[in-house]
Amino acid sequence: MNILVTGAAGFLGRRLIEALLQRGSLTDRAGKSRPIGQIVAFDMVELTGIDDPRVKVVYGDIADPEVVQRLIDANTDSIFHLAAVVSSQAEGDFELGMRINFTATQAMLEHIRKLGTRPKWVMTSSVAVFGGELPERVGDDHVWSPKSSYGTQKAMSDLLLADYSRRAYVDGRSLRMPTIVVRPGKPNMAASSFASGIIREPLNGEQSVCPVPLDTRLWLMSPAQAIGNLIHGHELSAEQLTQGRVINMPGLSITVEQMIEALRQTAGAEVAGRIRMERNPAIERIVGSWPGNFYATYSQDLGFTADENFTDVIEQYRNEYLPG
Amino acid sequence: MNILVTGAAGFLGRRLIEALLQRGSLTDRAGKSRPIGQIVAFDMVELTGIDDPRVKVVYGDIADPEVVQRLIDANTDSIFHLAAVVSSQAEGDFELGMRINFTATQAMLEHIRKLGTRPKWVMTSSVAVFGGELPERVGDDHVWSPKSSYGTQKAMSDLLLADYSRRAYVDGRSLRMPTIVVRPGKPNMAASSFASGIIREPLNGEQSVCPVPLDTRLWLMSPAQAIGNLIHGHELSAEQLTQGRVINMPGLSITVEQMIEALRQTAGAEVAGRIRMERNPAIERIVGSWPGNFYATYSQDLGFTADENFTDVIEQYRNEYLPG
Repeated sequence: MNILVTGAAGFLGRRLIEALLQRGSLTDRAGKSRPIGQIVAFDMVELTGIDDPRVKVVYGDIADPEVVQRLIDANTDSIFHLAAVVSSQAEGDFELGMRINFTATQAMLEHIRKLGTRPKWVMTSSVAVFGGELPERVGDDHVWSPKSSYGTQKAMSDLLLADYSRRAYVDGRSLRMPTIVVRPGKPNMAASSFASGIIREPLNGEQSVCPVPLDTRLWLMSPAQAIGNLIHGHELSAEQLTQGRVINMPGLSITVEQMIEALRQTAGAEVAGRIRMERNPAIERIVGSWPGNFYATYSQDLGFTADENFTDVIEQYRNEYLPG
Repeated sequence: MNILVTGAAGFLGRRLIEALLQRGSLTDRAGKSRPIGQIVAFDMVELTGIDDPRVKVVYGDIADPEVVQRLIDANTDSIFHLAAVVSSQAEGDFELGMRINFTATQAMLEHIRKLGTRPKWVMTSSVAVFGGELPERVGDDHVWSPKSSYGTQKAMSDLLLADYSRRAYVDGRSLRMPTIVVRPGKPNMAASSFASGIIREPLNGEQSVCPVPLDTRLWLMSPAQAIGNLIHGHELSAEQLTQGRVINMPGLSITVEQMIEALRQTAGAEVAGRIRMERNPAIERIVGSWPGNFYATYSQDLGFTADENFTDVIEQYRNEYLPG
């Protein structure tokens, strides 16, 4: 199997590559398990620390058609397309967001259509495609009404992927990911960045700002679940995808207050005391437009899984990223 | 007011221009009624028969960025964007459909964004954005799940227009039109072309083929209602559009059998006898994926209107297009 991973230097990309290398094989278009021969790890920022002869690191701009031509050829069996500009950044820089989150996806799909090889394609979409008046729990048949350019670009990419799959140009699966928590490292320009920050920074002995009210309800997934679901999404056969190629992932529905309480219970009051409440209207507007709970019936029927409780999510971060 | 109408030589475009000329004025961005100074009537096919000094006919390819640059400038107050490749044609020629139904829309919106003038924009979308497992009546919050490339391209355009409007680059309104019946003239490559054909051809003394089962339920609107609703959609203020810029139009829900029965009652058994049932799987698949009934609550609250019965729809065609 020849695999392309875009956004490979990102947090999910890197973990996915490590998981694929450890797994060693994937199911091909014909339903046959085959060893992974090569992973092309593509990004525009530096990717270090992965030392495996099966990995070839390539740098470039995913929205450049010439780059796309070189990246994907008739030998490409599967693509994990994770490259994206995050929500607040896409809101602040409209052209950049459109270019990376939509135009690049379209260029890749067009190139694949012309190749005629119908590779498997797994892409991350987002709960940001939803917005406006929402029921308490959003069902699989709820309208997409994004209140951000990021959500719009993801929804457009979802529609495009579904049509290219329907026409058998590609064998696509778009996974609507919850907010991934706890991300390691530094805050980023995702509007939801705080959701990791309010756990990560206190555990690292640092102060953290929570920009949304305590009763804000979020739909979360841990990094380990996300990687497991990305690979599961790849392994499903086209025949199993009876309700379409765009799949709302299962998740954990929890309020910010419950997240902080779980932190207090696992790490103590001093750690939880490092969170300062300071509302940010711009972040509140974007995050507040996302659903906090779903009936993700289709994905559960397909065998995708969710975290059972937030305490385990915190423990996952501590075990993987904190010494001792 | 300087108005641009794309798809001006089409059936709706021509009628819209006539209605605008007769009306003589429109409400501008500031909410003020102003006389119509010029209508730029744009199409790639010949437009004849409109003889009014306020109309300037321009020919070209709407997907050509240079054409778009010339068509829309700082003096353009309002745009009625009706140019489209119809459903069966967009299904048969993927590149052409994408180019006209999506890329052209995107290029026009991008040009407007750079102009910074925020014109009013009224666009026709379609019930073809819906598909898959549908409830008996589709609500305003039902997911878009197109089963055709036409529906996909319209849904992507809707998402784009909504985001450009949210960002105040344009003051857009996309009207999700039912199937327009009875269209005059010849059959076209819309999958729904038969819905006009089974009324029009028999009334003109010709045979007609019905390619779908008698119990197929359609969501219809007459030409006069469509034109009235397009103008109404323009006249609404941005503040009234509280539930977004993409609006499922009200319509008339009716089965093919009921349509034929109405024809029999108004024109007699001999006329209705000119319809031959001959199923066409390709048309059945596309038309069968569209909803036949809606709760179009939002549009009704906004004052859009529907035909009350199909007999009047037939009479409208006879009065307007049949001599005597």
